[in-house]
Amino acid sequence: MKTAFILAAALMALPAIARDSSPPPPSPGELVAGAAADEWVTILPDDLLVMDLAPDARGPRRVFIQLIAPPYSQPWTANVRTLAKAGWWDGLAIVRSQDNYVVQWGDPDAEDAGKAKALPKGMHATTEQGYVRQLDAVAMLIDPCGDRSHVPATWLCDAYAPGATFRSGWPIATDGVREWPVHCYGTVGVGRGMSPDAGTGAELYAVIGHAPRHLDRNIAVVGRVIEGMEHLSTLPRGTEALGFYATPAERTPIVSMRLASELPAADRPRFEYLSTEVITFARYADARANRRDPFFIAPAGGADVCNIPVPVRRAP
Amino acid sequence: MKTAFILAAALMALPAIARDSSPPPPSPGELVAGAAADEWVTILPDDLLVMDLAPDARGPRRVFIQLIAPPYSQPWTANVRTLAKAGWWDGLAIVRSQDNYVVQWGDPDAEDAGKAKALPKGMHATTEQGYVRQLDAVAMLIDPCGDRSHVPATWLCDAYAPGATFRSGWPIATDGVREWPVHCYGTVGVGRGMSPDAGTGAELYAVIGHAPRHLDRNIAVVGRVIEGMEHLSTLPRGTEALGFYATPAERTPIVSMRLASELPAADRPRFEYLSTEVITFARYADARANRRDPFFIAPAGGADVCNIPVPVRRAP
Repeated sequence: MKTAFILAAALMALPAIARDSSPPPPSPGELVAGAAADEWVTILPDDLLVMDLAPDARGPRRVFIQLIAPPYSQPWTANVRTLAKAGWWDGLAIVRSQDNYVVQWGDPDAEDAGKAKALPKGMHATTEQGYVRQLDAVAMLIDPCGDRSHVPATWLCDAYAPGATFRSGWPIATDGVREWPVHCYGTVGVGRGMSPDAGTGAELYAVIGHAPRHLDRNIAVVGRVIEGMEHLSTLPRGTEALGFYATPAERTPIVSMRLASELPAADRPRFEYLSTEVITFARYADARANRRDPFFIAPAGGADVCNIPVPVRRAP
Repeated sequence: MKTAFILAAALMALPAIARDSSPPPPSPGELVAGAAADEWVTILPDDLLVMDLAPDARGPRRVFIQLIAPPYSQPWTANVRTLAKAGWWDGLAIVRSQDNYVVQWGDPDAEDAGKAKALPKGMHATTEQGYVRQLDAVAMLIDPCGDRSHVPATWLCDAYAPGATFRSGWPIATDGVREWPVHCYGTVGVGRGMSPDAGTGAELYAVIGHAPRHLDRNIAVVGRVIEGMEHLSTLPRGTEALGFYATPAERTPIVSMRLASELPAADRPRFEYLSTEVITFARYADARANRRDPFFIAPAGGADVCNIPVPVRRAP
């Protein structure tokens, strides 16, 4: 993509009039709309969570969460499936809403050994090491703005790692030796206590603000909200420390949280994402990084990995 | 700050036990709390907007917006002051709320020449050129991940420019020849039509999601929300294209929008921001980029300019 950035930089030097002398280039949305059917990947029912919050004055509140693909965070995604199949979250609540940070849900009594809800059988143990996919035995120190000559030119510039790219439909950061999923808007991660507690997956949060990339490699990413995000992002903010709600009445009840695979076949939502390994995604990412549609005057010449959201749609 | 990043990367190699062998390093918040009184800068009443939205079930909704410092966007900030002094926004409304993008307010009839509200006298003309502060006559092409040897090592790595830093309390991106304010969470900018329309300042928006940095150098940044952001970020999302509300009833009325300098002295809110030119800010920025407080396992070794919010507080 680097080459494209340089071309875009050259475009910036064109006078405004030149922008009118040819049909406008396609916008990112137009490129996605033109993707071939076989460039879309079905999201499997076992990779899709359906969370129903108690309805509000505006109606039902259903949130869809896609679980992250292997090899990332597998002990946690396995636990999340186990918890969903057990109906563990049913009757629990959203306990925290912190502006420009996260909304968090789980057991309000999780900290009270006497009242905490028991976890189902078959949960996997989790460790810090699970956060990062080790590509080989040697760890490279991270210096985001250092020499990038050892990383592929197609990686995106990143302020938190030598490079960022996409794998199997997910944004990742990498130093060429390790790679790890990143925290973007809508990312779902695993709440935990102080290290070495790595969290079980029972306490989850969704990012509702600017990408908190400092959480990368510190917390397990298990998925992302793909529809219904507004039901989380517009929740009233909590007034206690970290945005926890001051009273139980302020919490939003979770009616149920299930895997799509547990729903009757006729009721299963069907989503697909644009493969990140196809040419249309590369064109889309380039268009996000170099906006040339008519509204724009100066293409940026780059974009951060969280500003290139992987397109997701309802299956036609 | 580059050196600090490298040191932080070295810290990452320490075994977990080493983190417990000495008192924990201060968190970003602890560093800010320890700032000296003379490291804080008063926000002047002419640089502070007070926007009162119609109260909702939870009570009053007051939003405070700091206008950006010279030399950035001065024709627009001058217009915003003129509009506030004329009470131009009073009785108008928030017309748009698009998830992970912006909330926008102004005249719902702005597009209808017959009904559009007349602007006050004394408005400045605005042009695209005003978006960018030209540091000298020659423009450098932007290649964010290219050779950074020509930019100061203290600049932050940035995916949208050769570097990013802070000036007079504001995050900016720069290529060493030009510099421009950036779009972060809470940034307030000027709505406009297609270029060469640069907007007057009468239609404003606030960013409620991940930093839309592709708007940098395309739209004039006039300020940032410094308190009351939750009153904008939690507004119901609009269901029409771009998050516009489908019906007038869905819009949130603006009761009044004034400069603090127009309020009776006793009623004036008093805020201050941490100077970005003092050592405490540098230590705070480094701590944001290299989280070493006990919760964290792996300091990132970097941060993007929007993940280092300039601290703002009520004046003691």
